[in-house]
Amino acid sequence: MFVIGERINGMFKDVRKAIEEKNPEPIKDLAIRQEKAGANALDINVGPAKTDPIKAMLWLIDCVQSVSKLPLAIDNPRLEIIREALPHCCGKAIINSSKADPEALAEYVPLAAKHNAGLIGLTIDAKGIPSDVDNRVLLGANILTACIEGGISPRDVYIDPIILPVNCDQKQPEFVMETIKQLRQVNDPPPHLVVGLSNISQSTRERPLINRTFAVMAVAAGLDAAILDPLDTELMRAIITAELLCNKHIYCDSYISAYFER
Amino acid sequence: MFVIGERINGMFKDVRKAIEEKNPEPIKDLAIRQEKAGANALDINVGPAKTDPIKAMLWLIDCVQSVSKLPLAIDNPRLEIIREALPHCCGKAIINSSKADPEALAEYVPLAAKHNAGLIGLTIDAKGIPSDVDNRVLLGANILTACIEGGISPRDVYIDPIILPVNCDQKQPEFVMETIKQLRQVNDPPPHLVVGLSNISQSTRERPLINRTFAVMAVAAGLDAAILDPLDTELMRAIITAELLCNKHIYCDSYISAYFER
Repeated sequence: MFVIGERINGMFKDVRKAIEEKNPEPIKDLAIRQEKAGANALDINVGPAKTDPIKAMLWLIDCVQSVSKLPLAIDNPRLEIIREALPHCCGKAIINSSKADPEALAEYVPLAAKHNAGLIGLTIDAKGIPSDVDNRVLLGANILTACIEGGISPRDVYIDPIILPVNCDQKQPEFVMETIKQLRQVNDPPPHLVVGLSNISQSTRERPLINRTFAVMAVAAGLDAAILDPLDTELMRAIITAELLCNKHIYCDSYISAYFER
Repeated sequence: MFVIGERINGMFKDVRKAIEEKNPEPIKDLAIRQEKAGANALDINVGPAKTDPIKAMLWLIDCVQSVSKLPLAIDNPRLEIIREALPHCCGKAIINSSKADPEALAEYVPLAAKHNAGLIGLTIDAKGIPSDVDNRVLLGANILTACIEGGISPRDVYIDPIILPVNCDQKQPEFVMETIKQLRQVNDPPPHLVVGLSNISQSTRERPLINRTFAVMAVAAGLDAAILDPLDTELMRAIITAELLCNKHIYCDSYISAYFER
């Protein structure tokens, strides 16, 4: 599982406070702890902090890069902020995210190609998030096609079928799993399939349980990347075990510690 | 999930001791606690206790029936013991289990039909457990056909594709999930799909974690019955949540307690 640590996000109070107070220590600490907990990349999101968003994004990147060499997922709805942030990244970056409209892809794909960055593409267009499998798969295929035509390797493409909270529409988790299965088959090598995991449990009471249960099911469907909280130890243990049962790690009694020692 | 509680089995030391000492209290206690924890049926297995197996089986049934009205899964490799036990059951019984050989089915199917009992059929024949999906599905279909021809409703048929320990062959969990998916499609209504869950974690160090992770994945594949330990609270919570995410229970914040209050 390609784990993109979600914790450096101004939606979390500790991060928002650190941004507003320009205090680098909580940010560095979150970067170090997430990497240690198994993150393969770190999401960087200014969120609703009351400050200049471009300056805040560059400051967050500096804080993180002072302690970690992990790839950064530059997470912002505004193209101009991503455009400023990418040259600021020392290593591999991932753009989080583009929608699937041709107009959006026409801007984000060349930008990702120029910086040799990964691109997360959401299966949403001007009509919104498709409520069925077929149209999600169609949008996912459109994203992949645009990326390949734009010179981005499928290995740098992350398609996000957008999981909705389970308390909004209970048919959606199965639709997302089926979308993942089908999108793994559209190309060889397939693109990565990614979800913003915690969205499934928004406004529910059993958030960690719902998160890890869906993660396990999605791994069985073919999910190979996720934006999630790697500090949730039970979630990481569940994902590693799901991958073991899907024959993605070799069994040994200490397969969990072996995963972290790789 | 149709949960068949696994704990009344002479393989467990407490049960073995109770059988050998003819002490009904631990057996009654296990029956009551498993029912309270969500069991829909109770497996009854004498195991390796040093005593007359027929007498021990009838004694276990009496102990359990003095405190519970749940269906009993009569679990013994010897046909004559099952033949003695079935008339001793007050309510619905389930035979656990028949192999898929025509000779075995020719004995077990009429016995189940005579007693209006359910039948667990294992996808194993004289050649052993198939190591692939196709032959497991074939054996499963043979079991179902024999049952329907023998007058047993598919709703009383439980096909067990036999999960092997993950440390024996890591391809098997995915094969079992695929077998479950395919066998759900062979008939309408489909037979039940069941596994003896704890087998997957035999001789591993992380038994509860591996058990509940596989259970979640198997529910997504279509598993609707399992022989398991309902006293494992985290396992039950994981299964209920997996079913919620597969739209089998209606969401409410207290969906877990609602499950037990049904």
